[in-house]
Amino acid sequence: MPIDHTSTLFHDGEQYELTEDGHLPPFTPARTPKYKDGSSIDWLHEEAAERERDHALHSQAGVRGALLPAIESARMWVVVIVTGMGIGMAGAWLDVLVKWLGDLREGRCSYGFFYNSVACCSGLDPGEVCKDWETWSDYLHIKSVFAHSLLQAFVYVALAIVFAGAAALLVVNYAPYAFHTGIPEIKAILGGYVFDSFLTPWTLLIKALGLALTVASGLSLGKEGPLVHVSCCMAYLVSRLFKQFRHNEASKRRVLAAAAAAGVSVAFGSPLGGVLFGLEELDTFANETDVMWRGFVASAVAAVALQWVNPFGTAKLVLFQVTFVDDTWRAFELIPWITLGVIGGVLGSLLIRLNVEIAIFRRQSVLADWPILEVVSVSAFTAAMSYLVVFARVQTSELVANLFQECDPTKGDYHGLCNPTATRQNIFLLILTALMKMALTSWTFGMSIPAGIFLPTIAIGACLGRAMGLVTQSLYRAYPTAWMFLSCPPDPSVRCISPGFYAVIGASAMLGGVTRMTISLVVILFELTGALSHVLPIMISVMTSKWVGDALGKDGIYAVWIAMRRYPWLPPVDYRDRGETGATLMKPLASLFVIEDGKTTVKEMIQLLEKHEFHGFPVVDRHSEFVGYATREELQLAISNALLSEEALTSRRICTFSQNHLRIHADERLDLSGTLEQAVIQLRKEVPQELVVKMFQKLNPRQIVFTHAGKLTGMVTKTDVVALLTSHFPHAAALAERSGS
Amino acid sequence: MPIDHTSTLFHDGEQYELTEDGHLPPFTPARTPKYKDGSSIDWLHEEAAERERDHALHSQAGVRGALLPAIESARMWVVVIVTGMGIGMAGAWLDVLVKWLGDLREGRCSYGFFYNSVACCSGLDPGEVCKDWETWSDYLHIKSVFAHSLLQAFVYVALAIVFAGAAALLVVNYAPYAFHTGIPEIKAILGGYVFDSFLTPWTLLIKALGLALTVASGLSLGKEGPLVHVSCCMAYLVSRLFKQFRHNEASKRRVLAAAAAAGVSVAFGSPLGGVLFGLEELDTFANETDVMWRGFVASAVAAVALQWVNPFGTAKLVLFQVTFVDDTWRAFELIPWITLGVIGGVLGSLLIRLNVEIAIFRRQSVLADWPILEVVSVSAFTAAMSYLVVFARVQTSELVANLFQECDPTKGDYHGLCNPTATRQNIFLLILTALMKMALTSWTFGMSIPAGIFLPTIAIGACLGRAMGLVTQSLYRAYPTAWMFLSCPPDPSVRCISPGFYAVIGASAMLGGVTRMTISLVVILFELTGALSHVLPIMISVMTSKWVGDALGKDGIYAVWIAMRRYPWLPPVDYRDRGETGATLMKPLASLFVIEDGKTTVKEMIQLLEKHEFHGFPVVDRHSEFVGYATREELQLAISNALLSEEALTSRRICTFSQNHLRIHADERLDLSGTLEQAVIQLRKEVPQELVVKMFQKLNPRQIVFTHAGKLTGMVTKTDVVALLTSHFPHAAALAERSGS
Repeated sequence: MPIDHTSTLFHDGEQYELTEDGHLPPFTPARTPKYKDGSSIDWLHEEAAERERDHALHSQAGVRGALLPAIESARMWVVVIVTGMGIGMAGAWLDVLVKWLGDLREGRCSYGFFYNSVACCSGLDPGEVCKDWETWSDYLHIKSVFAHSLLQAFVYVALAIVFAGAAALLVVNYAPYAFHTGIPEIKAILGGYVFDSFLTPWTLLIKALGLALTVASGLSLGKEGPLVHVSCCMAYLVSRLFKQFRHNEASKRRVLAAAAAAGVSVAFGSPLGGVLFGLEELDTFANETDVMWRGFVASAVAAVALQWVNPFGTAKLVLFQVTFVDDTWRAFELIPWITLGVIGGVLGSLLIRLNVEIAIFRRQSVLADWPILEVVSVSAFTAAMSYLVVFARVQTSELVANLFQECDPTKGDYHGLCNPTATRQNIFLLILTALMKMALTSWTFGMSIPAGIFLPTIAIGACLGRAMGLVTQSLYRAYPTAWMFLSCPPDPSVRCISPGFYAVIGASAMLGGVTRMTISLVVILFELTGALSHVLPIMISVMTSKWVGDALGKDGIYAVWIAMRRYPWLPPVDYRDRGETGATLMKPLASLFVIEDGKTTVKEMIQLLEKHEFHGFPVVDRHSEFVGYATREELQLAISNALLSEEALTSRRICTFSQNHLRIHADERLDLSGTLEQAVIQLRKEVPQELVVKMFQKLNPRQIVFTHAGKLTGMVTKTDVVALLTSHFPHAAALAERSGS
Repeated sequence: MPIDHTSTLFHDGEQYELTEDGHLPPFTPARTPKYKDGSSIDWLHEEAAERERDHALHSQAGVRGALLPAIESARMWVVVIVTGMGIGMAGAWLDVLVKWLGDLREGRCSYGFFYNSVACCSGLDPGEVCKDWETWSDYLHIKSVFAHSLLQAFVYVALAIVFAGAAALLVVNYAPYAFHTGIPEIKAILGGYVFDSFLTPWTLLIKALGLALTVASGLSLGKEGPLVHVSCCMAYLVSRLFKQFRHNEASKRRVLAAAAAAGVSVAFGSPLGGVLFGLEELDTFANETDVMWRGFVASAVAAVALQWVNPFGTAKLVLFQVTFVDDTWRAFELIPWITLGVIGGVLGSLLIRLNVEIAIFRRQSVLADWPILEVVSVSAFTAAMSYLVVFARVQTSELVANLFQECDPTKGDYHGLCNPTATRQNIFLLILTALMKMALTSWTFGMSIPAGIFLPTIAIGACLGRAMGLVTQSLYRAYPTAWMFLSCPPDPSVRCISPGFYAVIGASAMLGGVTRMTISLVVILFELTGALSHVLPIMISVMTSKWVGDALGKDGIYAVWIAMRRYPWLPPVDYRDRGETGATLMKPLASLFVIEDGKTTVKEMIQLLEKHEFHGFPVVDRHSEFVGYATREELQLAISNALLSEEALTSRRICTFSQNHLRIHADERLDLSGTLEQAVIQLRKEVPQELVVKMFQKLNPRQIVFTHAGKLTGMVTKTDVVALLTSHFPHAAALAERSGS
């Protein structure tokens, strides 16, 4: 009879890796919790487990006691450094792959199919024309100009469709979690959400491959967010090698945080920006300086690896190197720059809004059933539009690099952008490109393909900024002696206004509006551009855009997606209640399932555990005095152990948790006091709701119990707090997974 | 009789500003605590007060209810922006003052005493020799070379003594808290320490003036830390204008944090570095994103103000602009760079150690009674030594700028540093300068003058780094074809090694060793030098030096000073206990002074309050069940109000705190339930000590009470936790103030 109980009750438990090698782990017997995907970890519990493991290691006799902790720490560094190197090299090779695939849409190399256009034409003398790179029409010896253009356009669009369709096929069939940017999920995971299927090797592979395909297909997306996801998958993979990470959710998350920093470092060639992104957006390092330090090392290692592979032979981390003729800027320029900040704030909020509406429409309409078809159609449309609007034809990163560049007569002119007689056309074309990209991006970000939002946002902002620069410049050329331009040199042929830098400002403003990041954004931007001397204008535009954006809606795009997908993530907001107390938020005693100390029998306990899926139960004595909190997992494990070891165990025995029941004969009770959580936070229900929220934000427990003079009065869980903090958002949970998988 | 009680008991209370205008403030009656210098604020309490104020504002009727909160927020921005502008301009004018005073030691301008050497010689044609700037010997028409040198040396040393002596005189007599860097105190204040006399206008004035004098005197010190102090003093001054900051210690600290960021921003011309310094070293922004955002704005405003005043007409924020011929670096260079990292870590720890020993010697020896004499002697010695060692003769900032500069034949050669035939002499001289500065700095940092440690540390590191660069360069010149240098161009006349950049690396390593900062250090360094493309080597050297330094002692120089001066500051370390529980740390019930609910009479209560200086008392009922916590201040205020309002109050009345005593007739009891703290954190004494420490670090309360099944078992205060966390430091409290002023 007890055997039966075990098998039905602990079926899940036996699947758990802890026991898969047939014996309990040496250090943490009966202390390691099990979490299912979709639940939240209890940080206090995890840290307690880590502490016990730590004590066990240190208390080993002799050399082992000294050596084991050092090995423990070394393993952690191994994971951090290997992940850093891995993502650095992966990022570099992804770039190579993307360049090759992208060039394939234009033509091929005559002497080798696997060379991209640059590699194909390398080794030429300056001035020599490259004949080895052939367009598809040349390759097929098509002479007619019309047929030539038509074929080129056709291949361009067709390959875009093939690439994007292949990516969607892979994602939909093999790794559904490889879609989208991944940053909202990483944020949730780092905050304690359990989502292991998001980090599988399979997801890693599909996301990396799919990313290369989608970027090459010319869709309006970037590689930045997905690279963070890839980096975290790598860290997860490497960390599985060591028991210390497999068995502890807290240490696993510390390593993931470092990996996320490394991902940003590689995506932007911005090692500092990576650390700061982790700090500001992922909100992880706030807790421990050690984590920041590990992120710092991972970032640096990843950047070194990237520079070592050196995909394009430039040996530079700065992707969009800008060169400003003049290091100074004039006070009047603050007017266009602040205007750009305002525009960025407004358009950023609009982009978020559009993206949300489209995502909800996608979920509710027939589109939900045809994800691959959607991707194929959008990519065809994008390719066709991009082929028509000249600035959008090249890859987005190339467009941005050109927009950030100042006009220099000695270098080439990018599609007539520097032609002073075509200023009006250019301004029109730039604004058109920006609007087109805006519409495409809000549709693309959320389809079933890997897609980041950073690069398209930069491109939109850069177009607008460059347009603003051209407007200012033509004003200056028209009225060089106006009082506004007094600080410029009187001769209008000398450059006073640098439209390229306006593009940088526009990009910062737009990014500020979409992501609502501040300091990490500024660092990433000047690590991207090398525009260190212009850090102040960048700061000012980001400030303006964040102010304006916040006035139109407090949440950045990642926070919005987290709310829509209903991840249990606590926003680091400064929550203010309106006089509510903990009593408003808590589930009162009457609606809680509690275990009664010294009364519940083993049989009742097993029934309780089978019936309810709760993470744990408060334990009270018969006067409803609070005794402690026991998790379901711990109770299962303890009863299972007791069933195995004690032959004479009957299901009529009484479960006891406290010292008050010592008078009951040992044969008639089952001592479960070991299952009680060590660290339970108690508050009175009269405390302000604000404080309850703050305790959750700072200490990240799973639950807080409320007691009054020792008596249990209620309980609040993290889910309740998340619901409270996202209640203001109109589409909260609109995209939550339908089945509780 | 009751009147007597009041006057003796509440003498302190009447001095308190809250009641100085004769009436209680409208929003927070009986809710504002009083803290004395030297105590710690209770963050939870302060936040509760802020919340009540907030509710009161929002609940005002009509337009007032909408307008008042907006005004509240606007006031905060006014303080932040005014402080930013103030410190930006103050920083600029301090630079001008220092430059003038420093030049005065060499000579004077013939046509105006108040021009410095650069201003005096401005407006000349290129190549023209400046005749208007006369050395003192020229001015006095001394022809003999010997007498000329002697006079120059004499004036140089004499003015150094005069400047330093004047600064010491001012500090010792008028503002003793204006000594030292100020950063340890700011860290403590931001963490909750109450130290208002540290932020007075008088301290502001003396610190700023004294700083200009000591920097000009050529002592081995920098202006960075003191500028942070000055900036905080400014913010304090401005914030006193508004009641919302005067009455709330938490909001005051939020503004101070922004000011500190602005101070660093001005000191290094590094707006981003300022924010990150606040984040990493001051550990303030970790709590709230809003605070980071304010620091960001304050930093930017301060940098704009500095650039607007533009003290030296360069319009540049980058102080030590470096220009590297070549943007790439070679793998073999990692060997000297990592070596520099190791040296920086070791010497940094050594510098901390030396500084501690000297500080303790100063305190214990006769020097303590002669602070001005000490400053005068050290400045005479410094001036004499600096005059002899050629590299040290100029101001430290000029030395650093020269060391960071690459050799360029078209520009001047700094004291033969670029002479390839004098490499050995240069290496010797650089190491000598570094050692001398090291000894001088460890003595100077801690004397009774304003003194920062950043710049001298940079100088020491730059000397060592440049020496290392020269060593590597001469190796390369000697063996250009060795395998190590294969990646260099084969022609040794082409530059392969940039000794100037080695100086930057050396400076980073040394700073890492002394301050143990990481990310903010890297940002400050490349905002200082503009060496963005070389961010990776800088990161690597900082990493190495922090690793090595941490192995030799965990604490940076500021943490060491905090421990020596025994400020109640919680280091943000990841504390690990060895199995101890809260029970080890807590004061048990038996040794606590508690108030018994429904038993203590008004008379006993007044006696208790008069007798004990504790911040507050736990309240228990007769079964020692925990009722709540009441602060001394609240109790005093409540009783004082009762004494004033109720004529019939007798001292025999019984103080009640809970609902259990409603049966006692209202005339026989005094209801003090309003004095109970709303937010009291309760734990069981079995929780791991680690968790207790963490709760203090994260939530920053003043105390945590331990209960078991509702019964009070003990209490832990912040002071206990600070003592625990600094117990490993051998000289903890060695420099604590002697009298409890």
